[in-house]
Amino acid sequence: MSTAPEHIEFATRDTKESVEQGLAFAPKFDAEGLIPAMAVDWRTNEALMLAYMNEESLKQTLALGQAVYYSRSRKQLWHKGATSGEFQIVKEIRVDCDQDALVLKVEQLGGGCCHTKATTCFYRRLATDKPGAGVVSLVRD
Amino acid sequence: MSTAPEHIEFATRDTKESVEQGLAFAPKFDAEGLIPAMAVDWRTNEALMLAYMNEESLKQTLALGQAVYYSRSRKQLWHKGATSGEFQIVKEIRVDCDQDALVLKVEQLGGGCCHTKATTCFYRRLATDKPGAGVVSLVRD
Repeated sequence: MSTAPEHIEFATRDTKESVEQGLAFAPKFDAEGLIPAMAVDWRTNEALMLAYMNEESLKQTLALGQAVYYSRSRKQLWHKGATSGEFQIVKEIRVDCDQDALVLKVEQLGGGCCHTKATTCFYRRLATDKPGAGVVSLVRD
Repeated sequence: MSTAPEHIEFATRDTKESVEQGLAFAPKFDAEGLIPAMAVDWRTNEALMLAYMNEESLKQTLALGQAVYYSRSRKQLWHKGATSGEFQIVKEIRVDCDQDALVLKVEQLGGGCCHTKATTCFYRRLATDKPGAGVVSLVRD
């Protein structure tokens, strides 16, 4: 992963067949220029966080070998860990059939991925084992 | 998971503190009324597919115990498996810190989750181990 971001290219999205069965990376960015990326632990596959990338952040991720997202709230590139030390070393990137979603298998450095200090952002589950009328409860586990 | 969808309620999103640390489910739907949901294998955590839910499909998922998404292309509820037999039995749902993304741990019935007949939609990885200038290649494995 040593190519400069500006030398990395994405393929054009020609046909449904080429997008789904082809071996050229042709990511689809939405109307806001973003593609969702789920970061998972590269050893356990545990979901860590869901974030978004624009074309530039995706190319920087590929060039750097570390996760670079696009912050929708701050409206700027977000090199994960640059301020916290919680870098994500990218071990593998997978793309889905229609190439509009990514999975990043990462080695999470630092204490964890979440700003709340949890090791994963998905630290709560819905209490669906005890259904009932009214507001759905969460369980922290 | 036997409560009727119309009796299931979501909490209001009061404060950042209550959303992040509270135990009331207060999902955030985007400008189009959708929340992303990553379905993963309940045993291995392998990513299966990323889809979207609106409020109604999420309540139906909770009521039914099977994944019901919202199809952005068809603009309608999408009970996964209703036509293919590839139902997803929901074993657990997790929500992230700001409650704008879901992980569904599912038992995938039928041959697999993808319309291409692959067991996962993420059947290709980026060839980031052989970086170079030009179009990024995919590897099917």
